[in-house]
Amino acid sequence: MTHPAAADHGRALAAAARSGDRRALGRLLTEIEGRSAAARAALGELYPLAGGAHLVGITGPPGAGKSTLVTSLVAAARAQGRTVAVLAIDPSSPITGGAILGDRVRMQQHAADDGVFIRSMATRGHAGGLAVATVDAASVLDACGFGLVLIETVGTGQGEVDVASLADTTVVVQAPEMGDEVQALKAGLLEVADIVAVTKADRPGADQAAASLRAMLTVGAQHDRAAGDRPRPRRPEVLLVSAIAGTGVVELLAAIDRRAPSTDDAAPDRRDAAYVRAETQLVGLVMERVRDRLASPAARARLAEAVRAVAAHEADPYIAADGLLATFVDDAP
Amino acid sequence: MTHPAAADHGRALAAAARSGDRRALGRLLTEIEGRSAAARAALGELYPLAGGAHLVGITGPPGAGKSTLVTSLVAAARAQGRTVAVLAIDPSSPITGGAILGDRVRMQQHAADDGVFIRSMATRGHAGGLAVATVDAASVLDACGFGLVLIETVGTGQGEVDVASLADTTVVVQAPEMGDEVQALKAGLLEVADIVAVTKADRPGADQAAASLRAMLTVGAQHDRAAGDRPRPRRPEVLLVSAIAGTGVVELLAAIDRRAPSTDDAAPDRRDAAYVRAETQLVGLVMERVRDRLASPAARARLAEAVRAVAAHEADPYIAADGLLATFVDDAP
Repeated sequence: MTHPAAADHGRALAAAARSGDRRALGRLLTEIEGRSAAARAALGELYPLAGGAHLVGITGPPGAGKSTLVTSLVAAARAQGRTVAVLAIDPSSPITGGAILGDRVRMQQHAADDGVFIRSMATRGHAGGLAVATVDAASVLDACGFGLVLIETVGTGQGEVDVASLADTTVVVQAPEMGDEVQALKAGLLEVADIVAVTKADRPGADQAAASLRAMLTVGAQHDRAAGDRPRPRRPEVLLVSAIAGTGVVELLAAIDRRAPSTDDAAPDRRDAAYVRAETQLVGLVMERVRDRLASPAARARLAEAVRAVAAHEADPYIAADGLLATFVDDAP
Repeated sequence: MTHPAAADHGRALAAAARSGDRRALGRLLTEIEGRSAAARAALGELYPLAGGAHLVGITGPPGAGKSTLVTSLVAAARAQGRTVAVLAIDPSSPITGGAILGDRVRMQQHAADDGVFIRSMATRGHAGGLAVATVDAASVLDACGFGLVLIETVGTGQGEVDVASLADTTVVVQAPEMGDEVQALKAGLLEVADIVAVTKADRPGADQAAASLRAMLTVGAQHDRAAGDRPRPRRPEVLLVSAIAGTGVVELLAAIDRRAPSTDDAAPDRRDAAYVRAETQLVGLVMERVRDRLASPAARARLAEAVRAVAAHEADPYIAADGLLATFVDDAP
């Protein structure tokens, strides 16, 4: 399974990306999305150099204003002279296999700015690959010197790309007119929040929504303790932000910075997030390899026959799955 | 890997559930959630008897009114004397491992009605297990004589439980005040729809939202053709429903029934949905087994050491994953 040419290509892309070549960085991220041998070789070079960036997940329901908030955060960080990268997790369309709305073309005001790098992530394949590719992409951006990496994703608490398992710090975005804050609670979103950003603070109801969220989070903290769970390091902050009025963004960035992991690798907060991420990544990579085997030409006919038999209710799916496991995983052809 | 007592217990639950014992059915679904040996044995009995039910996915963004719509559909089907089961996919809370709001306690008007069975599904484990457990649960309900199985899930196009891969027919629920129908498009939801139900039809803007969705779906159909994809059998219908005014529900149920799969196993529409479901299930079961191996006591210490090394940026995650694959999958202890 050596691909010398692909590996050389990957290492060359890694070196160029490290030296500041933004086109090489873009190409490398395309290799990562494609889960190629070149990407694997590049990661081998870059992964040891990563670990300095603050990976910040920005999640929330559709329509909460995540993209606008991310644009404001990028501008605020740039005003402080910092480099920022954005990974917009674009769920693949199940039919077209691609993003429908081009996140790539948004934030055009930053297009000519080398201190900002914006990328939509998508995979054609299974959803599991997207989380793995996102962690790889964040590692590359980290190794290339981006100190702040914002990972923006739609969140319902059910998303396969569980941003809380990828990021050091998770910001949950909530719009006041989403009305029922219970929806956010129901979706499990508040439980992963380090910070809750209530957007559209200029609109009526925003203060009320923030107060209601703070009350819920207090109840949640009590619930955690009652259940005997490990207490979270800090209770989530609730902040009001208005992109239109331009208020709250600098404060939000400061709140994010306060939660930046310690540069001491042994500090518990840094260790916790990095451990969760490493476990997600390792299990994801093993699964990816197993899935590749089931999709291999050798497995295809056998899988198709098993699918037919199960679909016709002629075969027990458990017995059929055991057969596939024995043939294509345990005795990988 | 035989568990004779567990298998006997599973077969006994299966027989009791088939005979109409609702408590046994509930216990069996708990075994399925727990991914137990008893569940596996029960499935072996029941899976060959399944295949007659119409599995209908009900999905849409949080706040669209899915639960209310499902309650209305259940009432409409019961008024026609039909048996109905509801599987409410409750994303596990990442912290508490359980549902926060009790879907189990909703729809109390049907609590004393043996022709309705309502169940929230959740798993403590990884997200992948939930899709597998949901298909197993639907097969059990099918084998126990429920002709209509409604699978309700939050949808953003990114959900791990992709209802379109589990159901014969997918209803996407959209509220007019969600405003921007582009959000539904962005989330990929419309692409999986066989039927779009615009709820809250009594509110202003509902007609406009329906018209806008119909226009989008026309563009989408043209796009599909241009991309050379296989055309979908029928363009999605857009229907207006008001739970308050009580309008549109009977029409929605009729539209669902018109899409019921043919009872002829060889009919293409039935085959397509059943094939997609069987493949999702088979791949999911193989993955579940691999994941179990990584979680086994034998693997735990080795995985923890790999996680530590990757988190500290001492080890390349790809090389570490290959090591885990070789040790705990290829040479399963």
